[in-house]
Amino acid sequence: MSTDTEQPLYLRIADRLEGMIRSGTLRAGDRIPSVRQYGQQQGVSVPTVMQAYTLLESRRLIEARPKSGFYVTARLARSLAEPVLPRHKPTTATLDNFASVLSTIRDINDPTLVPLGRAVPGDELIPLEKLTKVTASVVRRSPGTCFHYDPAPGSQALRRELSRRSIDWGCAFEPDEFIVTIGASEALQLALMAVTRPGDTVLVESPSYYGTLSLLAKLKLRVIPVPACSCGLDLAAVRQAVARNKVAAMLVIPNFSNPAGGFMSEANRRQLLDIADEHAIPIVEDDIYGDLPHQGSRPPCLKAMDRTDRVLLCGSYSKTLAPGLRVGYLVGGKHHQRLMELKNAMNLGGPALSALTVAEFLRSGGYDRHLRKLREAYRNQTCRIREKVAEVFPEETRVSNPAGGLVLWLELPEHVDVVEVHREARAAGINFAPGTLFSPVGLFRNCMRLSCGQPWTPRIESAIATLGAIVKRQAEA
Amino acid sequence: MSTDTEQPLYLRIADRLEGMIRSGTLRAGDRIPSVRQYGQQQGVSVPTVMQAYTLLESRRLIEARPKSGFYVTARLARSLAEPVLPRHKPTTATLDNFASVLSTIRDINDPTLVPLGRAVPGDELIPLEKLTKVTASVVRRSPGTCFHYDPAPGSQALRRELSRRSIDWGCAFEPDEFIVTIGASEALQLALMAVTRPGDTVLVESPSYYGTLSLLAKLKLRVIPVPACSCGLDLAAVRQAVARNKVAAMLVIPNFSNPAGGFMSEANRRQLLDIADEHAIPIVEDDIYGDLPHQGSRPPCLKAMDRTDRVLLCGSYSKTLAPGLRVGYLVGGKHHQRLMELKNAMNLGGPALSALTVAEFLRSGGYDRHLRKLREAYRNQTCRIREKVAEVFPEETRVSNPAGGLVLWLELPEHVDVVEVHREARAAGINFAPGTLFSPVGLFRNCMRLSCGQPWTPRIESAIATLGAIVKRQAEA
Repeated sequence: MSTDTEQPLYLRIADRLEGMIRSGTLRAGDRIPSVRQYGQQQGVSVPTVMQAYTLLESRRLIEARPKSGFYVTARLARSLAEPVLPRHKPTTATLDNFASVLSTIRDINDPTLVPLGRAVPGDELIPLEKLTKVTASVVRRSPGTCFHYDPAPGSQALRRELSRRSIDWGCAFEPDEFIVTIGASEALQLALMAVTRPGDTVLVESPSYYGTLSLLAKLKLRVIPVPACSCGLDLAAVRQAVARNKVAAMLVIPNFSNPAGGFMSEANRRQLLDIADEHAIPIVEDDIYGDLPHQGSRPPCLKAMDRTDRVLLCGSYSKTLAPGLRVGYLVGGKHHQRLMELKNAMNLGGPALSALTVAEFLRSGGYDRHLRKLREAYRNQTCRIREKVAEVFPEETRVSNPAGGLVLWLELPEHVDVVEVHREARAAGINFAPGTLFSPVGLFRNCMRLSCGQPWTPRIESAIATLGAIVKRQAEA
Repeated sequence: MSTDTEQPLYLRIADRLEGMIRSGTLRAGDRIPSVRQYGQQQGVSVPTVMQAYTLLESRRLIEARPKSGFYVTARLARSLAEPVLPRHKPTTATLDNFASVLSTIRDINDPTLVPLGRAVPGDELIPLEKLTKVTASVVRRSPGTCFHYDPAPGSQALRRELSRRSIDWGCAFEPDEFIVTIGASEALQLALMAVTRPGDTVLVESPSYYGTLSLLAKLKLRVIPVPACSCGLDLAAVRQAVARNKVAAMLVIPNFSNPAGGFMSEANRRQLLDIADEHAIPIVEDDIYGDLPHQGSRPPCLKAMDRTDRVLLCGSYSKTLAPGLRVGYLVGGKHHQRLMELKNAMNLGGPALSALTVAEFLRSGGYDRHLRKLREAYRNQTCRIREKVAEVFPEETRVSNPAGGLVLWLELPEHVDVVEVHREARAAGINFAPGTLFSPVGLFRNCMRLSCGQPWTPRIESAIATLGAIVKRQAEA
């Protein structure tokens, strides 16, 4: 079942060579062995090596020079620094006025703008044709099931597939441990309702995804934003926060967080769990990007290391298959029974047709093939946008370098006002998510999130150039 | 657009004759005019009259005697009294322990039992074939729309159809006044979240649908159950409740309530709105049965009489088309914007495919044809079960006589313990909803709800007989 062993040979070759380039073993301008040479050395067929080289070319790591062979690209004219940990203390904040912050979001859906706003797969990356076929065949095969209530825990067929896949997440859940939800957002909603009461305080990453802040606001919860960056939450700040405040739950994205692109190391995960154990704090894990590493195997979820049944795991197929299916899942551990009651009280279950469509997609193996292409696409798009940012944004700009997912987090020169940049960008027909959306207390006014969900096109490239020019003007003002 | 004018002639003839039978103008044993006679008298074709008579036969109002003609049936050997208003004061109750009451519900889904428990349409009454076709065609025609997010307010196509239909509800809402929801339960959830805060008290009908009590419990609300019967809420008790308590909202089902089968008169609706106006209390209207009168035209919703934008209207297509579509709607009036934010925070919108499927069903006119058959079926099934109850239950049994919907509410002799009846019935392979589910304070221990969603079959008939025997034994014990 592991997706690792299913990785085709060409992909493993490409990843190995990329590792050598990234580690500096192969350097910019170095010539790499010819296809034939490499094939002979490694005992691999020529077409396979060719496939690997083509992939490395598309990743812009190597380039073919006519009549001369392949060379390591002279990449990234200047190297980009990554954002630093936000400098703020972890203090409690209410979300009473967050709705007004969110009013900016409506623009994010404007289809006439260049779509660097919403973190969703571009049209070309949703397997529309296959989904259409699978949907039509599922509804024809079992209309009875599709049009009846599907109360919690939801479709057995889907839970069986989730159970099989959970081995890849470092877990081995039984089908009966899952509850099918309306996307991950409902999973988060239910998990939070199960472990908090209105008025309670939830520890969140800072910057935090605005959708989650909005959910917390609607549930009448307060937050403690704790600084996070490329390696996830600042654990010293977590310790400080839980020591000084009554924290009802922690909400974390250990795999490729949105927006910071953070990834927590195993050691950090262990420490976070220890802190949670010590203070008896439940953890709500948002793992919607877990299936989207840019290379290598799928990382385990935090829940895999959870020895005390402290983690409630939330996931979905919105970023990997299609947002409109509205299929997510929740593993609630000891809260399972209450979560089922909660789910049924809220909406009596989701649409069975969506659940069965995803189940069939997972079962038939179409998902793994699709995922391989999708990861490569997100990786490429992220890489291209990073390079372009390096080229056109002010020198002091910092950009995240996420190992997965589909967003980039930018820290602009300190006095740039991103709200002003957003206004100018909109006038120029370009959308992005201003940093202010990611803080309940007005932080990140010089930050922005760029979605890399769309295929790289001249339109996207020129939009980044325009953004760079706007930011530069602002920086020099 | 009105469904009234669309009512075919034979149906109007049948309804007119039924009216004469019910009013006593035509009495049991009376001979009615022959088909030819009636046709000539009324200037109607013979086939049309025949169709009307056949319908009246299936309604068991007339019967053909060989070589003699049609006669008014000697119906209901003994007439059934209707339940009286529950005798309890409207006092505040918590729902802290309601989850344990609800544990009985799991049985309601047991497919091996005779299904008199859940208030859902029977398999034969869901237009599976048409829904399958429409779904497959919708997904093929617009996969892009189906698989993308459909954030609040949700599908424009569906909202346009809802807007057109709202004329039949006595309203004329613009498409932009609707929010598409995951069934009516989510509509109720959002409406309640918008107008209450945890800890608040909501006035509800007593008996109350257990699903709604469960939702209120999860939202950490308290309730004041106010006695209700065939004419809806006892308005004197409503006045008493709002005079003595701080009521944050009232939750009512003016059209064919579940479980009491109540229908509020126009005068009573006016009074309820006046009370609400006087005390500035928002009203959440659950209108999921509004499309299901057993005869005549669709009644208006309470919202139609609302001059002060006080009513939040909730509805769905779960009882009329298919529960598994999970398509409902909400008209929130002045709360619209907040409700949209709430909906998006909770789950980023429902599945567009379901919404588009319902839109297409409504647009193409298939819905009205389907509804005509469905109303007749619910009416027949309700009628048959009532008659059988009259035949086999103890004489003191009272049964509701709803003018719409698909449930009957029974009041058994006072000392019958319905929990015991439920236990015995289950052992005999029969399911129903015990009255205790419909009260947060342990009332209705001698009551039960029978679902009339299933076509009348020998299996159902014999299950009612068995139930009657169990109740009789209990009554005589």
